[in-house]
Amino acid sequence: MSSPALRYATSAKSAKHTLATLTGVQKRNLLNKMADHLISHSESILEGNQQDMADGRKAGLSNALLDRLLLNPERIQDMASSLRQIAQSQDPVGEKYDFKILDNGLEIAKMRVPIGVVMIIFESRPNVASDAAGLCLMSGNACILRGGKEAIHSVTAIGRSLKHALSEMKLPPELVTIVEDPDRNLMEELLQLDQHIDLVVPRGGEGLIGFVTEHSRIPVVKHDKGLCHVYLDAKADHKMAHQIAINSKVQRPGVCNAMETLLVHKDIAGEILPKLCAELEKKKVEIRGCSQTVKICPDQTKVATEEDWNTEYLDLILNLRIVESFEQAIEHIRQYGSGHSEAIVTDDYQRARQFQTQVDAAAVYVNASTRFTDGGQFGMGAEIGISTQKLHCRGPMGLRDLTSSKYIINGSGHIR
Amino acid sequence: MSSPALRYATSAKSAKHTLATLTGVQKRNLLNKMADHLISHSESILEGNQQDMADGRKAGLSNALLDRLLLNPERIQDMASSLRQIAQSQDPVGEKYDFKILDNGLEIAKMRVPIGVVMIIFESRPNVASDAAGLCLMSGNACILRGGKEAIHSVTAIGRSLKHALSEMKLPPELVTIVEDPDRNLMEELLQLDQHIDLVVPRGGEGLIGFVTEHSRIPVVKHDKGLCHVYLDAKADHKMAHQIAINSKVQRPGVCNAMETLLVHKDIAGEILPKLCAELEKKKVEIRGCSQTVKICPDQTKVATEEDWNTEYLDLILNLRIVESFEQAIEHIRQYGSGHSEAIVTDDYQRARQFQTQVDAAAVYVNASTRFTDGGQFGMGAEIGISTQKLHCRGPMGLRDLTSSKYIINGSGHIR
Repeated sequence: MSSPALRYATSAKSAKHTLATLTGVQKRNLLNKMADHLISHSESILEGNQQDMADGRKAGLSNALLDRLLLNPERIQDMASSLRQIAQSQDPVGEKYDFKILDNGLEIAKMRVPIGVVMIIFESRPNVASDAAGLCLMSGNACILRGGKEAIHSVTAIGRSLKHALSEMKLPPELVTIVEDPDRNLMEELLQLDQHIDLVVPRGGEGLIGFVTEHSRIPVVKHDKGLCHVYLDAKADHKMAHQIAINSKVQRPGVCNAMETLLVHKDIAGEILPKLCAELEKKKVEIRGCSQTVKICPDQTKVATEEDWNTEYLDLILNLRIVESFEQAIEHIRQYGSGHSEAIVTDDYQRARQFQTQVDAAAVYVNASTRFTDGGQFGMGAEIGISTQKLHCRGPMGLRDLTSSKYIINGSGHIR
Repeated sequence: MSSPALRYATSAKSAKHTLATLTGVQKRNLLNKMADHLISHSESILEGNQQDMADGRKAGLSNALLDRLLLNPERIQDMASSLRQIAQSQDPVGEKYDFKILDNGLEIAKMRVPIGVVMIIFESRPNVASDAAGLCLMSGNACILRGGKEAIHSVTAIGRSLKHALSEMKLPPELVTIVEDPDRNLMEELLQLDQHIDLVVPRGGEGLIGFVTEHSRIPVVKHDKGLCHVYLDAKADHKMAHQIAINSKVQRPGVCNAMETLLVHKDIAGEILPKLCAELEKKKVEIRGCSQTVKICPDQTKVATEEDWNTEYLDLILNLRIVESFEQAIEHIRQYGSGHSEAIVTDDYQRARQFQTQVDAAAVYVNASTRFTDGGQFGMGAEIGISTQKLHCRGPMGLRDLTSSKYIINGSGHIR
């Protein structure tokens, strides 16, 4: 008898071929039907969710966690809309690019192809299940969805509703494989099956990502933390600097592309900081500053510790450091940045170019808020996450990043 | 005290920044100097190699292995030429692509950037050391080179000669870090250091690749076996079919893009095979065929076993199967192919398109020999290997595939 992990993986693998030859139109149909079935099965999805919520309350989950877990008719509508939006995206599969004709007349191009079987490991947000399934199927991949144990009934119910759409299209139900058993050992076993599963995308906290990296033989695309900086250069436009700093911090502080640390060149700190700190205080932002900052804005500033510079607050707390030079700002970002999103505000052409060349991050901004790092904002459509690693894809990971490629070569009897 | 593995990794990591800002011209200079130093240090490289050859003979290495290990003045010249050729390639770093302007006026593009620290793990060919160092440095990456224990003195001497070029350019010697200790435990420790090393490329046999995949926390780009097929379709031009079959098998049978199995549609087998088998016999190719093949070419054909269809011979042995249909050919390739290079010979437009869509391999050919799967042949310049995996890059892996990307975004005070 094969193990449950192996059964999940082999059935997903054997189903994947059925997607490879679907046209864009057929995949759009499928996703729209999935949206319909989410709505028509709302009742059973909400039942599953109520069970998870009850279990969660008993287990003493925090209100924040319970809110992430909660589904209601409006949230199910949003999940359906998201699927319909993915259904309108450009089909990446079969797209050809990098054409060239070699001197010998051989024609060569790359063609985007599905990766195969993609496993998404997530935590408590049940909507990740339908989003991830939509993105995987639209890019021609079978998916294995493994949600957190606190969301298990919600995810299972969502998975069942999606399978109705697969069966209407006469596609195998294993294209959306739900791991209904939240056991960690089972997940660990799944992470060994690199002959069956082609990619793992963990979406969640550091604990989950560490566990997956540690145990996976399968290639992983990581969506790690965002410790983002904004640097206000000596030659920054003051009004622009003020607006970008405020926006990067307060527009939505709880997300990975929000600013955690503001770096200000010493030449403009005296002029810009008093007004900026006052505005931050009005927005209820707590400031942890370097010793210089404390002198300029003594009222609302605590002294930042080494740990603070290393912390992704995801909250209304901001580190603030006055730097001696452009180079010191770059050095600070190199030391503490997580390689997510980094911004400079400057009117100096050379500084702008140097910043974008020297700072190593998924997204490097000149004169714009870090808050734009997002598949939707980048015009890519929905995203499965934001990759903070350098292999395969980096930054918002959309449909195209869920594909691989193959070389297609056309000759007329070419031999070597 | 830190371990030797950690010392290798941290010194390579701390050196990598020095390369990120070099211009193409500076990198070309560096590679040309490396070539010069290979030549001027020929004597010590040959001494190291003689030691390895002596040790190898004592250890009873096969003649084939000893030949791979052997260096002589001509081979060192070839290594230097290869570096000079890489020095002439287009610098991939800083290249911008995928430009777009969003509706809000934000400009966004991708820029190629170095990956960081790349570790190459190889076996007995010492020339891999200089090729890999050249490719890594030209693409802005620090490299850690870990050769097989049988080549340790050669690789160490090559590494020392290359470091002279680094020091002439006032670059840190750790940009080319040679693991001078062939201990497997040390390699295992290195494979854990995903905070320092960004990519591992194992080049060698299945044993090495399995070991690396098993033990690495670092992302791996695999260069696995090539079990390549050529399918002669019912509508193939007979002369072209004959030439491509012969070329794919015999032009250089010992390499991964050579054909191992020939599939022939039943409608043309009777006409095409007698002449083809006679020619293969003349070229000293042993045939292992299906029962049908044995009937058509009884003299030189043994019956193929299930194991044969699964074997990468890298030798003058060919599996030959007569298939009932196009679909059976596709199915055979799906079952036995290693996803390296697959070819169809046909004059049928639909079949050509279907083959290229349905066959999942790094390179899929119509009317050309599988022997073209090679960075040089594809016009990419030198390659670090041929990736048979789907993540990051697939097919010949050249300079561009040794880079990552970052989004660069230019605004004029954009906020959300």
